[in-house]
Amino acid sequence: MAPALVANGVAAVNPPVTGRVSAVYSEVQNSRLDHALPLPSVLKGPFAVADGPPSSAAGNPDEIAKLFPCLFGQPSAMLVPGDAKKLGAGQKLKIGVVLSGGQAPGGHNVISGIFDYLQDRCPGSTLYGFKGGPAGIMKCKYVVLTPEYIYPYRNQGGFDMIRSGRDKIETPEQFKQAEETAVKLDLDGLVVIGGDDSNTNACLLAENFRSKKLKTSVIGCPKTIDGDLKCKEVPASFGFDTACKIYAEMIGNVMIDARSTGKYYHFVRLMGRAASHITLECALQTHPNITLIGEEVANKKLTLKNVTDYIADVICKRAELGYNYGVILIPEGLIDFIPEVQHLIAELNEILANDIVDEGGLWKKKLAPQSLQLFDLLPSAIQEQLMLERDPHGNVQVAKIETEKMLIQMVEMELEQRKQQGSYKYKFNGQSHFFGYEGRCGLPSNFDSTYCYALGYGAGALLQSGKSGLISSVANLAAPVEEWTVGGTALTALMDVERRHGKFKPVIKKAMVELDGAPFKKFASMREEWALKNRYISPGPIQFIGPTSDNVNHTLLLELGVEA
Amino acid sequence: MAPALVANGVAAVNPPVTGRVSAVYSEVQNSRLDHALPLPSVLKGPFAVADGPPSSAAGNPDEIAKLFPCLFGQPSAMLVPGDAKKLGAGQKLKIGVVLSGGQAPGGHNVISGIFDYLQDRCPGSTLYGFKGGPAGIMKCKYVVLTPEYIYPYRNQGGFDMIRSGRDKIETPEQFKQAEETAVKLDLDGLVVIGGDDSNTNACLLAENFRSKKLKTSVIGCPKTIDGDLKCKEVPASFGFDTACKIYAEMIGNVMIDARSTGKYYHFVRLMGRAASHITLECALQTHPNITLIGEEVANKKLTLKNVTDYIADVICKRAELGYNYGVILIPEGLIDFIPEVQHLIAELNEILANDIVDEGGLWKKKLAPQSLQLFDLLPSAIQEQLMLERDPHGNVQVAKIETEKMLIQMVEMELEQRKQQGSYKYKFNGQSHFFGYEGRCGLPSNFDSTYCYALGYGAGALLQSGKSGLISSVANLAAPVEEWTVGGTALTALMDVERRHGKFKPVIKKAMVELDGAPFKKFASMREEWALKNRYISPGPIQFIGPTSDNVNHTLLLELGVEA
Repeated sequence: MAPALVANGVAAVNPPVTGRVSAVYSEVQNSRLDHALPLPSVLKGPFAVADGPPSSAAGNPDEIAKLFPCLFGQPSAMLVPGDAKKLGAGQKLKIGVVLSGGQAPGGHNVISGIFDYLQDRCPGSTLYGFKGGPAGIMKCKYVVLTPEYIYPYRNQGGFDMIRSGRDKIETPEQFKQAEETAVKLDLDGLVVIGGDDSNTNACLLAENFRSKKLKTSVIGCPKTIDGDLKCKEVPASFGFDTACKIYAEMIGNVMIDARSTGKYYHFVRLMGRAASHITLECALQTHPNITLIGEEVANKKLTLKNVTDYIADVICKRAELGYNYGVILIPEGLIDFIPEVQHLIAELNEILANDIVDEGGLWKKKLAPQSLQLFDLLPSAIQEQLMLERDPHGNVQVAKIETEKMLIQMVEMELEQRKQQGSYKYKFNGQSHFFGYEGRCGLPSNFDSTYCYALGYGAGALLQSGKSGLISSVANLAAPVEEWTVGGTALTALMDVERRHGKFKPVIKKAMVELDGAPFKKFASMREEWALKNRYISPGPIQFIGPTSDNVNHTLLLELGVEA
Repeated sequence: MAPALVANGVAAVNPPVTGRVSAVYSEVQNSRLDHALPLPSVLKGPFAVADGPPSSAAGNPDEIAKLFPCLFGQPSAMLVPGDAKKLGAGQKLKIGVVLSGGQAPGGHNVISGIFDYLQDRCPGSTLYGFKGGPAGIMKCKYVVLTPEYIYPYRNQGGFDMIRSGRDKIETPEQFKQAEETAVKLDLDGLVVIGGDDSNTNACLLAENFRSKKLKTSVIGCPKTIDGDLKCKEVPASFGFDTACKIYAEMIGNVMIDARSTGKYYHFVRLMGRAASHITLECALQTHPNITLIGEEVANKKLTLKNVTDYIADVICKRAELGYNYGVILIPEGLIDFIPEVQHLIAELNEILANDIVDEGGLWKKKLAPQSLQLFDLLPSAIQEQLMLERDPHGNVQVAKIETEKMLIQMVEMELEQRKQQGSYKYKFNGQSHFFGYEGRCGLPSNFDSTYCYALGYGAGALLQSGKSGLISSVANLAAPVEEWTVGGTALTALMDVERRHGKFKPVIKKAMVELDGAPFKKFASMREEWALKNRYISPGPIQFIGPTSDNVNHTLLLELGVEA
């Protein structure tokens, strides 16, 4: 150990003075700035863009074809070694980039990748960063990105380089505003970095520009820590790797704490409302005693009582083995997967909107029998929350329910009953945790750093070749970076339609946890052992240097068939 | 980036099969097992033990002298290069070790240090690990520690090697049980690894053994993430460094999130009930907009309304500057530092025990006017919590109050009032976090790993030299490890007395945050800038390799006068 004279968190070199205004960097942040980002071989030399066969849609191709008359059916594109002249060498491009939706580690590297592509391949080009998400496009609010502006964000977490936003470009007026910006800035292309919704909108924008004969191409990039934007051609959304590693670090620490004290059950809720990929990946990394996967709960049509009993059963069995502690992972969106809860909430919304809720509880008679039974099963604090806290439309705020606390209370009540029946005689102490915001803006792992840089660099190539309506696709990720493939997949090929307000709406379906997929099957094959024996793994903090620094999440490797 | 074929969390080498029963290790955990632990130079060669001048007490030396007739006044011991023979070379020792109280990263390394000392200097010695804390001593429950048993715990977090416990050895019967164990195992010495209370008890045990003419010496070790067991001779308690770095990693991530979304105020409560060292250190590492320090709140006799107004004022000023986001750090024990809250709780306990609480609220008339005013100021959820949730003795459960949520609600109410008065016109979104269990069992930082190993190795030397009633003291920590000093400080020298139930009780006073100490003064000199400008620092995850891996916390360096 060297002399320990430098304090944690103090920048050893001068902090960057541009870009992140008045930013002060920790030593670790500083050390990441010059972390080298290797490129796939195909991006290092001259390359051409090869088209694949015509594409279709994920579902209802006829309707998708009607919604995207200009773009439907276009082939995927693959970068291959070849003659770069075909891409129009010497061309100066004007490109815009926008971040859309929630943060994910690596977003800054996508922008760095686009920027470096333009610097390397189209010197004299301009990259506009639209500020605050899609609203920045509509209001034409942007910053011209320069090397000095971008540098402090390389390999850094957050979306603060240009910030993100949740506005959508969907009405005719909004499309008009976007067109005006595209024309005003003479944009050759636009990169939309976002999740399933944002990429759907990117494709609608691409279609709109194409139909209006604007030269502006639109390319999407797969972003979300939730991990639910993926398909064969796009094996991962960025940010998932880093976020899961951060959550798994905390879960691993809590596990060692549980084993050391021997008296707490830690109920850990993990971000991810729609799909349970984060929870599943964290389970594969840490081996908790119980893991709830929303998709399985829905598939088996489990009730809240079923879930409570399952947890209580494991707790009782563990108690018999002498273990009065454990760790339980819960996806944020769990209750959205339980049909009876959805029914109860729908009925409550109806009653609260139209009827008087009397203190005597007569109003409860309006509930369907199974809803009433469920309501009476709920802890009183949750009952009150359902009745009192409502959104501006008067609806029950499902997202505000702290599922981990609700489950602790329900398990407590169940164990109390079992105690009275004599089938459980130990002490149950629940501790609740929620890990969410902590993982969205961490320093990106080496994998996310490299993957995002390639996504951005590849997006630049797609735009230079005039492609539109594609999502940047970097694949073959189990191989060394040099062998990664780079290209673009037709966004329309990922789409299906949903009927909303009597109209067909295009949607990129969220990729849910597949119960016959390799990650879930691996988990399912091991969970019984994890439940009763203690197989905790503590992944520790993400390392940026050394033998563990290039590790990749299990979900990706299992889906690629690399890990058994 | 090398081929990314190894998944995060999977052990690359075979997991250890002894010690941590059926443990599976992550790659990072594995990589720590063989991390080299340098020793201070004085521990590498032959050394002797030099005595300092006679000691006194931190207060009331006459009373301490009466309570510790055998041990009072003994000098501190310092290891100096010299003739090891004086320590009795060739001697085989029987030593016990116990972990007492809450977990702190590094505990396993203290035990490794004791063990390696015995292996290196007194071959053939035996180290008994008492299981489950002081109860293990009383019940004579132990494991004989072997190299195979200890190895898997080297540089690992947690206390699960022998577990800890919160029992105390204090009644005559309990002292008798401890004596029986000492005699039965023929113990030459015992190392008690614990906080202020545990070290006080270690000294009482040392006194008891000495008075009964037992040969068993007792040596303490300074453990607590709270950082409140320290003095000139013992510059740090172990675990503080690692825990603060883990919390600071999370806080830094949340800060980048706050800056990226621009719409949340994150209220982060940090573990540490008695003193606010953790909160202060995390502030120095991350530069939050607002930091509440319990000791300052008490010193300035602030009310809850004062604290709420202070937060609301900063939020209003930031809003005028265009920042509707921020990060606020809150020590877990905040409300214990607010006198009016203590008064209210005392009155409530009295009323709830003796009176009927009527729904109409007539009972409230029994509250003193200022308590009533405070009660009415509290959000209704907190009022209910105070009235309904009580411990088995019927007392209000102060520890269950989620201070960060209470403050969010109070700030919300205050800002709502200001909105009505026209002095605030923005949107306030509070997000609550509590970081505690996540930090107690993380993989120890390089500093804690090395420091703990030296504490344990030094404790071995003190025991071999027959010292008793000392706390292992490793100092000069700002210098390279080779120059660290090693010795022991008389535990009685750290003590004062408190009057309890009409008797004097010895206590090691908790080291609180000193408002004229260097860490607080540095914070105070910068907090106004942090409040309104955004000087966030994101320390990132603890690195075990590379240039940042040997960094040390600010508090220690500031107290040592190394950092300005």
